[in-house]
Amino acid sequence: MLKVRFKKRHLLEIKSLTKDEIETIIETARSMREVLSRPIKKVPALRGKTVVNLFFEPSTRTRTSFELAAKALSADVVNFAAQTSSVVKGETLLDTVKNIEAMNADIIVIRHSAEGSPHFLAERTKASIVNAGDGAHEHPTQALLDLLTLLDHKKRVDGLLIAIVGDILHSRVARSGIYCWKKMGAHVRVIGPPTLMPRFIEELGVEVYSDLKEGLKDVDVVYTLRIQLERQKGSFFPNLSEYSSIYAITPETIKYAKKDAVVMHPGPVNRDVELFAEVADSPRSLILNQVTNGVAVRMAVLYLIAGGKA
Amino acid sequence: MLKVRFKKRHLLEIKSLTKDEIETIIETARSMREVLSRPIKKVPALRGKTVVNLFFEPSTRTRTSFELAAKALSADVVNFAAQTSSVVKGETLLDTVKNIEAMNADIIVIRHSAEGSPHFLAERTKASIVNAGDGAHEHPTQALLDLLTLLDHKKRVDGLLIAIVGDILHSRVARSGIYCWKKMGAHVRVIGPPTLMPRFIEELGVEVYSDLKEGLKDVDVVYTLRIQLERQKGSFFPNLSEYSSIYAITPETIKYAKKDAVVMHPGPVNRDVELFAEVADSPRSLILNQVTNGVAVRMAVLYLIAGGKA
Amino acid sequence: MLKVRFKKRHLLEIKSLTKDEIETIIETARSMREVLSRPIKKVPALRGKTVVNLFFEPSTRTRTSFELAAKALSADVVNFAAQTSSVVKGETLLDTVKNIEAMNADIIVIRHSAEGSPHFLAERTKASIVNAGDGAHEHPTQALLDLLTLLDHKKRVDGLLIAIVGDILHSRVARSGIYCWKKMGAHVRVIGPPTLMPRFIEELGVEVYSDLKEGLKDVDVVYTLRIQLERQKGSFFPNLSEYSSIYAITPETIKYAKKDAVVMHPGPVNRDVELFAEVADSPRSLILNQVTNGVAVRMAVLYLIAGGKA
Repeated sequence: MLKVRFKKRHLLEIKSLTKDEIETIIETARSMREVLSRPIKKVPALRGKTVVNLFFEPSTRTRTSFELAAKALSADVVNFAAQTSSVVKGETLLDTVKNIEAMNADIIVIRHSAEGSPHFLAERTKASIVNAGDGAHEHPTQALLDLLTLLDHKKRVDGLLIAIVGDILHSRVARSGIYCWKKMGAHVRVIGPPTLMPRFIEELGVEVYSDLKEGLKDVDVVYTLRIQLERQKGSFFPNLSEYSSIYAITPETIKYAKKDAVVMHPGPVNRDVELFAEVADSPRSLILNQVTNGVAVRMAVLYLIAGGKA
Repeated sequence: MLKVRFKKRHLLEIKSLTKDEIETIIETARSMREVLSRPIKKVPALRGKTVVNLFFEPSTRTRTSFELAAKALSADVVNFAAQTSSVVKGETLLDTVKNIEAMNADIIVIRHSAEGSPHFLAERTKASIVNAGDGAHEHPTQALLDLLTLLDHKKRVDGLLIAIVGDILHSRVARSGIYCWKKMGAHVRVIGPPTLMPRFIEELGVEVYSDLKEGLKDVDVVYTLRIQLERQKGSFFPNLSEYSSIYAITPETIKYAKKDAVVMHPGPVNRDVELFAEVADSPRSLILNQVTNGVAVRMAVLYLIAGGKA
Repeated sequence: MLKVRFKKRHLLEIKSLTKDEIETIIETARSMREVLSRPIKKVPALRGKTVVNLFFEPSTRTRTSFELAAKALSADVVNFAAQTSSVVKGETLLDTVKNIEAMNADIIVIRHSAEGSPHFLAERTKASIVNAGDGAHEHPTQALLDLLTLLDHKKRVDGLLIAIVGDILHSRVARSGIYCWKKMGAHVRVIGPPTLMPRFIEELGVEVYSDLKEGLKDVDVVYTLRIQLERQKGSFFPNLSEYSSIYAITPETIKYAKKDAVVMHPGPVNRDVELFAEVADSPRSLILNQVTNGVAVRMAVLYLIAGGKA
């Protein structure tokens, strides 16, 4: 069915992927999910290949998801925790990556606070680079796993109305999600306080709301963002409880959306801050499906950029 | 010879294991030990299964023992160090485990300061839970490796007189040991200062001594506990040297026990505090045998709860 | 071609290796490099063997290099990070190693600040010990990978003139390098401020220079050491910029050496302190070749001490 081979050597962002490429990843992820459902959930596709997890921001969850994905493909995985490494000793990012490349790494999965750092590195290394989150820029595997999850539950994304709620300004998840959903034909709204809204966000083709009730009207998907206190350098809202009283998705506010609206969240959830436990644990919540699909999508990405056939 | 299959899906505690189940684990551990004595010490029993080490208290030794056990069974192992994970970001324990489960983990090995946390999780996850120590409650694999070690050296446990010396109050090792040895027919004494003795400890069927000399009389096994300063929140004894002068196992005090008494310790030893170096390094010390049996016992546990045939 | 089997069970230092043994390791590393150039860069030589990385000083790069080497040989690898382990709880080094040995580790790769600690342990354990750096004493795999790199580029080492520049006093890299190059027939100079020069260094058969220009005259190889501020307990030089103004290898000072002189550095480089970026990134720099050869040399060492045939 799939005739295009995936030809990219890196996965840096959603922005420059074609719809065909996205669909190829999704199809491949479905095959990988089938592998993960077997009693022996392992294939030899990347045997003798090396994946290095290079995380400059702590994230056990995303790192673990990539590690499990790589191991299910039989790759050798090394975790290069950047806080204990030579980076502390003053080595530059490029030196670190050049060293990892020189050790014959095939794929480097990188999370870094500097926006564009994966792109910068991709131009300067023979290894394949996977962006696992660069500052407030992109987090492409998150958008892809979200897409797969939505396709599982809504069968289609084309024509859906999706609302992203929260701190849009600091969110690489929002940015990658917007690019991905728009490419697949969805209508996207962003909802949040004006102080947490990037300037010119309308240019991405989204509608902006500051009122939760208005913004959720007729919505099929409520995508709640994590309030990341650690990522906020200024004072963008008075305090958490005020934010929460206006924008939290609660058993009451979820009623503003369509009756069959699903709820998503990139995790980890601040329970009863941006998302109330009753909603997070309700049947309409797809949060754990997102996590499960994360491993399959990352397998697909690692497999395809390593030259695997779609 | 073994006709019962091990049917438990978790290993949470010794308390609710039957004697048959304990013997099944011990028999299986003996087979695993044979595997570990081969030039290629690896079997494919858990190939394509995932074991996640989820340690909320630092313990390189126990974590390494589980990691080696899982790898010898060809499982994929991921270390999920809880201090650097989302737990720090405020994620609840259950959310963390639900996420790991959603990533298709087959077995979660957990160490946590909250007593009963493995039981709580076992009721709420599809993954198998292995308790690697929960607060002052239980540490079941320690008791099982101690049992195997004792059987190696005394051939039987039934009828033996075992004395546990030290801080009984804070010791999950003591609690699991008492349950295990009593089930196997041993007589158990606990020796220590009254401030380090749990109330109602007699109800576990042990004899209580505060005098070391009296307590060690006729004893076959001297099981020394580690003085865990980091686990003591109050002031249970004036100072270490006073404790040591009264309860340390030294070349002199070991003479209170039977002539062929063996000495055990769960490690790491505070040399010359609770156990003197001359005794720890003497032929009667089984400490390193305990460590070796730890890997075999953990292989047996992982294998059996994953559905392996005894 | 190689008739001698490598008979050492440990790799503790260069000092006591014969020229034959060094050549055996280099030859084996060349075979390993061929393995690493294959699409599936993995051989089953150490399947079912366990390698434990026991690093008491942080070093993600060296640890990663050993980890990749062990995995390419199909060994199981466990990282035993010593700062989070029982060592913090007061366990002695020997106890830690005895415990790791009791867990059936085949090879322990150790980095420790105490000079001679790998030798001390080698006499007391059944496991094989690989010294990955002991204080200011030796770092044998670094010298071996440097030798392989030099042989690649100069075809021979016999008769070459090599200058080591920098903090000779605190450098295990310098010490292992001197032993290795002298055994292979090179002439070695050491260049640095007198405060950073070990007493009696001439007894190793090297010439000592405090003037960079004089020292670099006619030199084939400029081996720049890292200024390791973290390793210096006293005040050996006024400040970094003064050191740098006198001893840095810059596009100007490199001209003091032979026209075709190569530049090496054990990494990580303090750019523009001991080595200027223009030189580090120039065609004469072998720094990344050193890193690549590191994995091959470590594979060779692990393979040979585990009893592999040369």
